[in-house]
Amino acid sequence: MRDEHDSAIHRIEAFSDGVFAIAITLLILEIGVPAVSGNPTLKHELLRLWPKYAAYALSFAMIGIYWANHNSLFRLFARADHTFLMLNVFFLLAIAFLPFPTAVLGDYLRDSDQRQTAAIFYAIGLLLPASGWFAVWVYALRSGLLVPNLDPHYLAIMTWQYVISIALYVTAAFAALQSPWLGLAICVGLTMLYLLPPRQPVYLSGNGSSAS
Amino acid sequence: MRDEHDSAIHRIEAFSDGVFAIAITLLILEIGVPAVSGNPTLKHELLRLWPKYAAYALSFAMIGIYWANHNSLFRLFARADHTFLMLNVFFLLAIAFLPFPTAVLGDYLRDSDQRQTAAIFYAIGLLLPASGWFAVWVYALRSGLLVPNLDPHYLAIMTWQYVISIALYVTAAFAALQSPWLGLAICVGLTMLYLLPPRQPVYLSGNGSSAS
Amino acid sequence: MRDEHDSAIHRIEAFSDGVFAIAITLLILEIGVPAVSGNPTLKHELLRLWPKYAAYALSFAMIGIYWANHNSLFRLFARADHTFLMLNVFFLLAIAFLPFPTAVLGDYLRDSDQRQTAAIFYAIGLLLPASGWFAVWVYALRSGLLVPNLDPHYLAIMTWQYVISIALYVTAAFAALQSPWLGLAICVGLTMLYLLPPRQPVYLSGNGSSAS
Amino acid sequence: MRDEHDSAIHRIEAFSDGVFAIAITLLILEIGVPAVSGNPTLKHELLRLWPKYAAYALSFAMIGIYWANHNSLFRLFARADHTFLMLNVFFLLAIAFLPFPTAVLGDYLRDSDQRQTAAIFYAIGLLLPASGWFAVWVYALRSGLLVPNLDPHYLAIMTWQYVISIALYVTAAFAALQSPWLGLAICVGLTMLYLLPPRQPVYLSGNGSSAS
Repeated sequence: MRDEHDSAIHRIEAFSDGVFAIAITLLILEIGVPAVSGNPTLKHELLRLWPKYAAYALSFAMIGIYWANHNSLFRLFARADHTFLMLNVFFLLAIAFLPFPTAVLGDYLRDSDQRQTAAIFYAIGLLLPASGWFAVWVYALRSGLLVPNLDPHYLAIMTWQYVISIALYVTAAFAALQSPWLGLAICVGLTMLYLLPPRQPVYLSGNGSSAS
Repeated sequence: MRDEHDSAIHRIEAFSDGVFAIAITLLILEIGVPAVSGNPTLKHELLRLWPKYAAYALSFAMIGIYWANHNSLFRLFARADHTFLMLNVFFLLAIAFLPFPTAVLGDYLRDSDQRQTAAIFYAIGLLLPASGWFAVWVYALRSGLLVPNLDPHYLAIMTWQYVISIALYVTAAFAALQSPWLGLAICVGLTMLYLLPPRQPVYLSGNGSSAS
Repeated sequence: MRDEHDSAIHRIEAFSDGVFAIAITLLILEIGVPAVSGNPTLKHELLRLWPKYAAYALSFAMIGIYWANHNSLFRLFARADHTFLMLNVFFLLAIAFLPFPTAVLGDYLRDSDQRQTAAIFYAIGLLLPASGWFAVWVYALRSGLLVPNLDPHYLAIMTWQYVISIALYVTAAFAALQSPWLGLAICVGLTMLYLLPPRQPVYLSGNGSSAS
Repeated sequence: MRDEHDSAIHRIEAFSDGVFAIAITLLILEIGVPAVSGNPTLKHELLRLWPKYAAYALSFAMIGIYWANHNSLFRLFARADHTFLMLNVFFLLAIAFLPFPTAVLGDYLRDSDQRQTAAIFYAIGLLLPASGWFAVWVYALRSGLLVPNLDPHYLAIMTWQYVISIALYVTAAFAALQSPWLGLAICVGLTMLYLLPPRQPVYLSGNGSSAS
């Protein structure tokens, strides 16, 4: 029973998966081979790159988590319209942007003068896809694009979860104004949380009574 | 009833979707991490990159729109031949080229001496895929590759729409000769227009009478 | 009747299509934004990049043609084994290498001292995937991986066509020793030839008599 | 009988194949066009890049082999859970990292002062995906994610094979402390071994008796 709407959903999923896979793999390009000339050895230079390795791993995990969640949440969408499609493109714009704040963080984390700016910029870099996804989600909710028998309680919890995520990224950006390390710790902590299994969708039972 | 022709169409779609996804994600590579040395701070430098962010967002939206349209229009094609396939490759050549004029625009938009050239080059960069798609479309029309029961009136409107798009990109390039900002405004305006839902295909009714 | 062998073929095709799509889209990264400082204008610099545009278009067409041919020829393979898979990986290695000689050609075509080397290197860059594909083809022929009812005459013509291609790329490399432009002209000419529709496979008739 | 678990497996496979295809194709970007100024000719410079060509070919083969093995081994998994999915993301993190040690090796193999560091770093670069895959495998074994009727003897051999691989990469890194060339020879030798056809899975016979 795969109708035209299903097909639109499937197209968006396949394109999004492509963008996720490319953005996640491009992250490595931001770690340039260090030029060794004169005294400091290559070993020394490779070890000094640790902020780049850490930023690479953090952003890789982040995009990997978005991929996993995007995929499982797309099962909740029954159909798509043009606005939904375009909002998803803007969400992908924010995902594809992530290699840039990652590179900025990797380059300036060791620079005590610029660390604060780099941490704030990275928190904003994580705030953007969180906000983009929130827009996709709220639009789908309001426009009735979800499969019909989802438990409203489950949907409300998901919406709150996205609002709290956004609030925490904003908090991370402001916390970085006080201490860059605190701001980054919030970003890392949120990523750790997202590594946990996502909440399973709750469907209303077939006879129409709420399962919550 | 998926015959060999369908399979050729499907292959072209999958390959094109790959190129769209890669080209759209590569755009971020054109924004290099600014080198901060001495007085100007990283914050200052990141803010100064606004033309790059704007060019990134504009080209991302443009490729995203082409992807969405390419997908919905490919439903109108019943079969493909070798020339159609090769014209599509040249259309993709123009899509994959887009990160380059985007980077030129992002680099030189703030430079009052070179802004005009950058704006004209960007308008040409948008003109190329518009022309490439027009070639694909006209070839498909002339060679009877479309599904048979499409309303001729709908097809005529689509053809005119592509002609007008091309004319407007040419206009944008010439307008940029007078004022780079005017040329870019036309490009942005056209992109805004394309964000609207595309015209739905009109099919002739089953008994052969025109639905227009 | 999609058995395990079919599935192996399908996997190789999907992976190969991915590599084709990525390699073709990465070509644009080799055209760097020119730095304009002092007298020569951006317009002048963008026009001076013509060898890069030409090399981009030539290699894009080349990879596009390989993609189209790879896809249609894979219909002739009934099954795959590990060696076939690994030979295909080495063919892809040669395809993915192509952006490098393309960049070398684009950078040094205007340099009369180095033009010869760049042209020879580019001809070798085209020779590599031609040889890689030849190895895939001959191995499939010898190991009985093709669908059973193909006309031997058709197969012999295809084999000769690949041998002649390889010979012509070798010729192009040697011709470039005399004149870089002659060597490149052979490469361009071959690409033009490949833009023509490929020879359709000929199957023996069902009653076992040869159709040739 | 494709149930939800199958679908999760399929999603992970498709995403992984994307990352494999992109990482393998990005390798070429690490070979920069040499700048020729003054006496040494382009020919000389292109020949001097042989360590980059060798590193490109070695890492291409390595990722190609991982792709092939990942695909055939995924047929053994009956279902996936969230932890399995996340372990696979971390395995992909190690695959996508490979272009970086490849570039380091290509840049410093000719530098007798830094060769040792580059060789050790490359061996570690190969150790990472081997360890990542081992984690995926052991988790799947322990959590009963494999198809039920696999021969325990076969599974034990596979586990030992992965342990030995990891041990050999560790050996390669330590051997490089003595001689960079010896360490690299072990890496190349292992890659050669992996080019051989993988061990075919052994299933217990239908009546429950062990086939080993």
